[in-house]
Order: sequence, then C-alpha cells, then structure tokens
Amino acid sequence: MHYQAILNQIADRVRHFQGRGKVADYIPALARVPADKFGMSLATVDGDCYSVGDAHENFSIQSISKVPSLMLAVGQIGGKLWERVGREPSGDPFNSLVQLEFENGIPRNPMINAGALVVTDCVLSNTRDAKQAILDFVRVFAGDKNIHYDSEVAASEMEHRFGNAALANYMKSRGNLANDIEDVLDVYFHQCSIAMSCRDLARMFLPLANKGVSPIANTRVLSEARTKRVNAVLLTCGLYDAVGNFAFRVGLPAKSGVGGGIVAIMPNEFSVAVWAPELEESGNSLVGTEALALLTTLTGKSIF
Amino acid sequence: MHYQAILNQIADRVRHFQGRGKVADYIPALARVPADKFGMSLATVDGDCYSVGDAHENFSIQSISKVPSLMLAVGQIGGKLWERVGREPSGDPFNSLVQLEFENGIPRNPMINAGALVVTDCVLSNTRDAKQAILDFVRVFAGDKNIHYDSEVAASEMEHRFGNAALANYMKSRGNLANDIEDVLDVYFHQCSIAMSCRDLARMFLPLANKGVSPIANTRVLSEARTKRVNAVLLTCGLYDAVGNFAFRVGLPAKSGVGGGIVAIMPNEFSVAVWAPELEESGNSLVGTEALALLTTLTGKSIF
Amino acid sequence: MHYQAILNQIADRVRHFQGRGKVADYIPALARVPADKFGMSLATVDGDCYSVGDAHENFSIQSISKVPSLMLAVGQIGGKLWERVGREPSGDPFNSLVQLEFENGIPRNPMINAGALVVTDCVLSNTRDAKQAILDFVRVFAGDKNIHYDSEVAASEMEHRFGNAALANYMKSRGNLANDIEDVLDVYFHQCSIAMSCRDLARMFLPLANKGVSPIANTRVLSEARTKRVNAVLLTCGLYDAVGNFAFRVGLPAKSGVGGGIVAIMPNEFSVAVWAPELEESGNSLVGTEALALLTTLTGKSIF
Amino acid sequence: MHYQAILNQIADRVRHFQGRGKVADYIPALARVPADKFGMSLATVDGDCYSVGDAHENFSIQSISKVPSLMLAVGQIGGKLWERVGREPSGDPFNSLVQLEFENGIPRNPMINAGALVVTDCVLSNTRDAKQAILDFVRVFAGDKNIHYDSEVAASEMEHRFGNAALANYMKSRGNLANDIEDVLDVYFHQCSIAMSCRDLARMFLPLANKGVSPIANTRVLSEARTKRVNAVLLTCGLYDAVGNFAFRVGLPAKSGVGGGIVAIMPNEFSVAVWAPELEESGNSLVGTEALALLTTLTGKSIF
Repeated sequence: MHYQAILNQIADRVRHFQGRGKVADYIPALARVPADKFGMSLATVDGDCYSVGDAHENFSIQSISKVPSLMLAVGQIGGKLWERVGREPSGDPFNSLVQLEFENGIPRNPMINAGALVVTDCVLSNTRDAKQAILDFVRVFAGDKNIHYDSEVAASEMEHRFGNAALANYMKSRGNLANDIEDVLDVYFHQCSIAMSCRDLARMFLPLANKGVSPIANTRVLSEARTKRVNAVLLTCGLYDAVGNFAFRVGLPAKSGVGGGIVAIMPNEFSVAVWAPELEESGNSLVGTEALALLTTLTGKSIF
Repeated sequence: MHYQAILNQIADRVRHFQGRGKVADYIPALARVPADKFGMSLATVDGDCYSVGDAHENFSIQSISKVPSLMLAVGQIGGKLWERVGREPSGDPFNSLVQLEFENGIPRNPMINAGALVVTDCVLSNTRDAKQAILDFVRVFAGDKNIHYDSEVAASEMEHRFGNAALANYMKSRGNLANDIEDVLDVYFHQCSIAMSCRDLARMFLPLANKGVSPIANTRVLSEARTKRVNAVLLTCGLYDAVGNFAFRVGLPAKSGVGGGIVAIMPNEFSVAVWAPELEESGNSLVGTEALALLTTLTGKSIF
Repeated sequence: MHYQAILNQIADRVRHFQGRGKVADYIPALARVPADKFGMSLATVDGDCYSVGDAHENFSIQSISKVPSLMLAVGQIGGKLWERVGREPSGDPFNSLVQLEFENGIPRNPMINAGALVVTDCVLSNTRDAKQAILDFVRVFAGDKNIHYDSEVAASEMEHRFGNAALANYMKSRGNLANDIEDVLDVYFHQCSIAMSCRDLARMFLPLANKGVSPIANTRVLSEARTKRVNAVLLTCGLYDAVGNFAFRVGLPAKSGVGGGIVAIMPNEFSVAVWAPELEESGNSLVGTEALALLTTLTGKSIF
Repeated sequence: MHYQAILNQIADRVRHFQGRGKVADYIPALARVPADKFGMSLATVDGDCYSVGDAHENFSIQSISKVPSLMLAVGQIGGKLWERVGREPSGDPFNSLVQLEFENGIPRNPMINAGALVVTDCVLSNTRDAKQAILDFVRVFAGDKNIHYDSEVAASEMEHRFGNAALANYMKSRGNLANDIEDVLDVYFHQCSIAMSCRDLARMFLPLANKGVSPIANTRVLSEARTKRVNAVLLTCGLYDAVGNFAFRVGLPAKSGVGGGIVAIMPNEFSVAVWAPELEESGNSLVGTEALALLTTLTGKSIF
C-alpha cells in the first residue's frame, strides 16, 4: 500500500482512540489546544513527504526539542558529552530527582529533563548565541524559515520553572552545570517552546533516517556512526518510562513531547511525525502512539 | 568482507581486551572456567554458519536461557504473560528487590531474575514436565540432541539460592507465583545450567532473526509480530543495566549470561553468539561486547 | 489522681475512638478477634498493678515479642549484636526489603521484622532450645506459668511466611543469618504467637522501668546501662513508621504488635500495657495510642 | 559529683578523641576554625551555669538555629505547622531530595534542611521582619544583646546555595513554599550564620528544660505540652541519620550543627551545650557526642 493511503487509513482508524487521554494543562498555552487535533507527516529519504489531517499546523514541540539540541551538542563536543550525562534508560518518571541524587548529579540520559539541561548547558558553553543557534538548526534542517519561538509558552514555562530549577540547582551543587542556572533555564524553555508542524518535524529529523545527511539542506549533520548512536538513545530513552512498551508495540526509535507530538525514525527509509494532544499517563501522546503502532503494522516495517 | 574473514579479524583484535574483566565466581563450576576462552559463531537465515575460536565448546548459558523459556511461555499463553511481568527496562541491577517492592511484586521485565522466575512459573503451570520441555525446545531449535543440563551447576545454584529465593518468596507473598517456590527454583536453576556451544546458541536463536521460523527445525516458533516483540524486549531489557550502552555501541537486540555468553540478533540476516568468560561490572561479557561492537562496525549492520 | 481512677477514665473516654481502625486480617486467628476489645494494665516498680476492661484476657502479642527476644540476645552476646543489626529508625514500613537491600543485609534496627529475625537467629545460636528459652523468659518475668504458644497462630504465620521468608533469604544471601531459614522462621513465628494478657505484659516489661531488675522474679535481667539502651531503641524504633508521631503525642518508649497490643515504659515509675485490636495505617493500635496519649496527659508524666 | 567537677573531668577525658573527625570545609569561614577547640556549658533550671574550655567563644551555630525558628513558628501558628512538615525521623542524610520526592514535597521533619526551610517560610509569612525577629528571639532568651549574624558566613552560604535551592525549588513546585525562594534562602542562611557561645546556647535552650519558661527572660515561650513535643522532635529527628545511635549512647533530646555544636536537654534539670568542630560521618560533632555520652554516664541522668 502507498504511504499516502496508509496515512489516510491511520487518520481514519485512530479517531476512536480520542477522548481517552488528557491534554497537558500545567501551562495555559498548552491547556487550550483542542484535544481532537490530529496530524501526521511521513518524509522519505528520497525527498517525498506525505501528510494527513492537521499536519501543517504548528504546535509546541516541547521535549522533542531535546533531539536537535542533542544533535547540536554531539556535533560540538562529541564523546565528551557522555562524561556528563549517561545513556541508560531511567526506569523513572522524566523529572525524577531521586535518580539524580543516587547518581551524584549525572543524569541517566539526555532525554530526561535533567539530561537535557546538561545538553543545553553544553550548547550554551560552545555557542555565541545559543537561542539563535538552536533556532537556526531547526529552521535549516526543516527547510522552513518561519519556525519561531513561542514567547508566551517560554514565559509560562519560566513562571512554572520550579521543578526544572530544582534539577538545575541540584546538578549545579554537584558541579555538573557550567553556566548560570537562569541562563540555562532560559535557553531550555525557549527550545521547548518552538512551534512547528508535523511536516517540519518529519523533515527536520530526516538526517537520523539518512545516515546523518539532511536531504533538505543537502548537508551532513552527524557522522554515520553518531547517527546510529543517537537513534539508539532514542529507542532506549526517548519515551519517558514507556520506552519498553513503545519499542514492543511500535518498534522505532522515537521522541515524544507533552505538546502531543512524537517523531519516529525508520533507518534508511523515513522519518514520521504525529501530533495528537491527549497524553497517556507516562506523558506520551496516546493517539500518536496508536497511529505509529498502526504504521508499523500496515507497512510491516520496524527495526526489529 | 566475508563473514568468516570478519570473525577471524574480530578474534584477533579482541585479544587485547582480555584480562580487564572478572570471571563469575559465585559457584565453583563457573569460577574454574579459563578466563581466556573466546568463541564466536554467526548463523545466517540462509542456513550458513561461521565460527571462530572455542565456538564448539560447551559453556553454561545461564541467563541466556531466559530467552528460550520466554519464547516457550509466549507460545503457551501469549499476551496474558504481560499481566504478570512488565516490559520496561529496569535501570537497576538484575537481582534487585527494591524495584520489585515498589512495583508490588510485578517484575519490571522478563530478563531480570524476578521476571524470569515468573516466566518459569508460567511454563511450569502449562507443561507436564517443564524441565524436559525446556531441554527439548533448546535441542530441537539448535539441532543438537546432545545438549544437556549440567547437574553440578544446577546443584551449586540451588545451594546458593538465597538471593533468588528472596525474590521468589516476595512474589509469592504478593500473589505472583502459582507453583511451589522450590519447584520454580529447581526448574529455573536447571534452565540456567544448560551447557551448549556458540554454534548451538547461534542456531537456536535463528527464529528471532527469521520472522519466527526456525530454519534448523523447519518450524514456526512464534508469529512474525511476536518475534519482533521479543526482539524489542531483548533490546530494551537484555543486558541488565548496561542496556543503553550496549544499544549505543552495538545496536542489536541481545541477551547475555554470567557464564560469559551473549547472543545477538540482526533481523532478517543472522544471529550471532559469542563466549568470553570475563565480565564487566554490569555482569555482561566484556570481550564479548567488544567483539559484537566490532562486528557491527565491520559489517556496517545494526538495527539503527 | 490515683492510677486506678485514671485507667477507669481512659477506658471511658477512648470508646469514641472505636470503629475508626482495622483489625489485622492476614491470618484467620487475628481476624476473628472482636474489634471492640479494650484492656489496660499499669504495673508500678513498687509492685502494684492496676487494670481495667479486658486486661486479663489473652491476646496474640505478635511484634511485642521482639522485646523479650532482644533482651535475651543482649543478655547473651551483648554489644556484638550491633555488628549484625543497626539501631536507627527505619523511616520505612516494617517489612521493607528496600532498606535491607540498600544496606547490604544489615537490618536498620531490631524492631523491624528483618532485625527481629537476626535477633532470633542469635538466640537460636546461643540456646539449646530457643523456643523453650523464650517461653521460659516470658513466663518467669511475667510471673505466670500458664503463658503459652498459640500453635494455631504459629501455623497460620508459617503458612503465610513468604514476606518474612523473602527477608530471611535475602539476609542469608548476604551472610547475615547463621541458622537454617526454616528454623529461624519457626522460632520467630512461635514467639509472635505468644498469647498473654495486658497484666502479664505490664509485669513482664517492669525490668525496663526498674533499671534492669524484675520485681516479679526478683532478678536482674539487664545492667542499668543496657536497660536505658533498650528503652532508647524502643523510643526511636518501636512503633514502625509512626515512631516520631508516637513520641510527639505519647512521649514514652514503647513497642506495638499487630494483635493490637502496645507496651510502654515510664522509667523509674511504671510499665503499662494496652490492648485494642483496631490498627491505624502504620499497624499500631489506634485506640491503644489514644489511651496512652491520655495517660501521659492525665498523669503529666512522660520522658520529655 | 558537682556539675563543675564533671565538666572538668569531661574536658580532660575527651582530648584523646580529637583528631578522628573532620572539620566542615564547604565554606571558608567554617574550614578555618581550629579543629581542637572544645567548650561546654551546662545551665540548670535553677539559674546556675557551669562552663569549661572555650565555652565563652562564639561559633557558627548552623543547624542548631532550626530549634529557635521552630519554637518561633510553633508559637505563631501552632499545630497548623504539621500540615506542611512531618515529624518522623528521616532515615536518610539531612539534605536528601529523594525522600522529599517520594513524599510529594512534604519534608519528613523540621530538623532536616527541607523541613527547616518550610519553618523559615512560616516565620517569614508571620513576621514583619523575619531576620530581626529570629535574632531578637535568640538574644532575649540567651540574655545576650551582642549575639549577631555573621554576614561573611551568610554570604558564603548564599554562594553555595545550590543544594538548598534545589530543595526549595522542589517544594515550591509542589506548592509547599509561600514566599519567594530567594527570600526564604536569605533568612535561612542568616539564621544558620548566627554566632554565639556554648554559654549563650545553654541558656537560650533552658525553656525546653523548664516546661516552656525561660528563667533568663522570665517569660513563657511555649506551653508545657508543646515543650514536650519539641523535645520529642529533637530526640527522634535532631541528629540527622545518627538519631538512634545518639539516643542509644547519650539518651537526651538534642540538636547538632555542622559548626560542631550540640545542645541537649535534660527535662526539668538542665540544658547543656558543647562545641568541638570535628564531625563524624553523619555531620555531628564527634568529640561533642563523646562529651555528652560521658555527661550522662557520670551524672547517671538521661531520659531513659
């Protein structure tokens, strides 16, 4: 079956999963997104892009932004990053202080909040203007100059910063944060506030499906070896504490965000982004997970 | 490069990693295995098998036995298994009581000891003679009638049973063990004591590389969907608390044992078994991990 | 006010706290005890004893038995005991495996189940017939030859042994249990099954209120220094994870049991036992705690 | 023996415990205090005060300040305080984030840092000028107008605030901190920086030995019932995670600080302060603990 037909069928079949999850409501800008939004885009390494539903509408990518900032940091300092952040699944909720304390301020992996703050700290230390650098990275590889920070979302996150500020302060107390805490949080909340569409996301993630090369920008972003390694981190750590279940049901490296987005990678073939705001209890898009499970069933494609 | 040439090169290059790990010594039969043993076998879905070093020598497969017993149990009761055991990575050492208590006696996944005891309990409930059934399964799919239980190892494990007995008693206290504790431990220690070679192991695991069908026995063992799911469990849970690092460096679903064996799967292509007794601190073969990292580098093949 | 008048007033006033707790029901013999039983006895160091309500009726002392076995073990091996068990409050439920694992098989204190099993193991190692020795100890210092083991309760506990067996196996695996697990559990469940009355208990605990000397048996049980130390352990560890609240509200060293008994000590003055089967959520007698809080309010006596 | 003779003997005998601990060195002002300082003062409820050694020299009281601020807060809001902070021993190091997370931002007790921050937050909410109020409280009940904040210490603590800031941010994220984090930390670090002598401390704590009345200021500070309750909190929570050991060896309610001070209470008789900068591994004065153990041995007085 053709990808477009598959996306159409998925859009149709996932409707009956709507109404079972809960839209993130810890900041107003997320809470007022309609629960029944659904969009999906699949971009192939050959340059084709298929979309369905609200795939061209911008939404808040939130934790999905941990992936471009990881790609930036790995490009800047390479293997040294792993001295400051691990790459093991956490087995705990994404904002856990417990694990951080047991492991002396070294976050378990770069996909939990503490680890992403360390990655942002690295980008801050290695870039003149970190906020601009992250935005440029996203714009260039999505091929869309209109992608922007949502300053209302960023301001709201800063207002509700205390949980993340606790993580940042704890890491600072253990010597694992080089920059000023306020600066790190400012960049971090801005990257989380990026507003972009499923189509943008699918295109931006193509380097991870294409041995490190962006077909959009016609540029190598990461070496082939590092590309595989980023995909490995996504598979083992990208879905908070539902990593095992997602690998079991979907079988693709992926990253989710509380804005309801999930981006997944089928190496050498495609990247795919889905958006549906209702979350399951681990904080991943409920309908989005079902859509991706259907995708691997209908295409017969997964990494396993 | 041809697989045989690659195996030869690996055998040559991993020598300088020897002497950095520690042979398991909690039972005498394991402690007296020479530390410098090294064998490796790669079996393709097309029926070829390549070997190097001590690949034909039997060793104690230990936790690798959790995979055939999982395949047996999934074949017997299917999805019902997941009501009694999870499929999330544990983030804790393989014999942790802590996690079990936090999660009320439901083990995190079937690759940690507690989870494997539940799987064994299922096999016991669904088979007339569980010890015979497990041995038959291994013999048939490895195509080797001489595979046997090592009764000295099984007796030693029973003598040092207290850690596993603590897990079993705790699960029994929470209602997650149907059979008598002594019976479950007896079957479990026997399956761990199975002695077989790299060649046997690579061949026995072929169904996981071949959409569920054993090319050796010419039989379907699992459906294609369940095969993918078992591979997903191996990738996220198969290497104790070095799961993320192994996915990062090797990039294949795999299972290790404290006897020094590791078996890995490249879906649709091959299964590969390696044996080198020295363990790193997480309990996985140190030289075996290096050998598999070299394999994915030299072949350019991984699931990512 | 005279002690007898105070006890009468307490018995009257605590009635309205009945019906708010829950009788232990994990074994049938405990579950069928009427919830509205209430008895209380206060024995002074001068030899007087005052009682009210069901103070002469036998009940299952359960964890209160941890105190006589601790007194026996301290008398047998003295300070060496503290190499195998700590004396810090646990901050966790009384049967926690978590803490035991974090602390490598050394129980936090002798009042949690794991610690009491170590104490029982010591008594077993230092007595020809541990069951007889414990029973004799209790009979002599209570001055009542009719105190007995309740074999139905002991058998029930053995049948539901799995939680305690998990603790015992874990400690055995860490080298902190010298005797056979079944033997330790057998003695432990027997000591828990002892049936005696409030009056017996108040009299048996008098040595702790009387600088170590039993006025009943006219014998020194412990040195004055060790007596103070046992009282300190009771105050910081005797009420499971409600230790702080009990010290705050009652202000006396004490030990509770899931049979609904609590015994408390006012040094140099009296020991007091109360029985009321309904438990609060930490496993201590709800009405018993209120009765003791009233006692310290009405007498103006507490250690603080 | 007379108290003065006992103090003299203690000062003599504890010398040989010197050199076994470690002076706190996380801020320069503490690190440069000579390790061999030793002072001790005992103030009786009758108005006598006995001293030995460096008892008139000021030192940084640090966590001992948690007691006067608790007395202030209990005086201001009474029992409502216990809705925001528990009163159970923690069983964990004094700055643990782990416990705070497990218990949803409600600190285990007011003697650990998180709990003391909540107490300070209460004082801030109920006082026009919290810093002045705390200083006045200490000056009045010690009867010494020269007691002052050490602004160098306070500034150093603020510079190394990250661990405490992590706790404060986490509690703010769970709704358990009413005031601005910076304000709470500012007051908290000031109260910790108070410089006073053993003599001042012994006198200031007299209300806890005297049913709530300060014989120095001739004023009631707390009701008799609340006095007992504060003493109960000190006994079960005042010595970090060495609470049980201190109760076992010393047997008095007490509070320690990393400046090397410990103040203890013998109800109805005396309060006693000791200062010796070297700490044992739990963060309590090593020589100070020995001095207090000698005091209870030589006087034969303890609450048990």
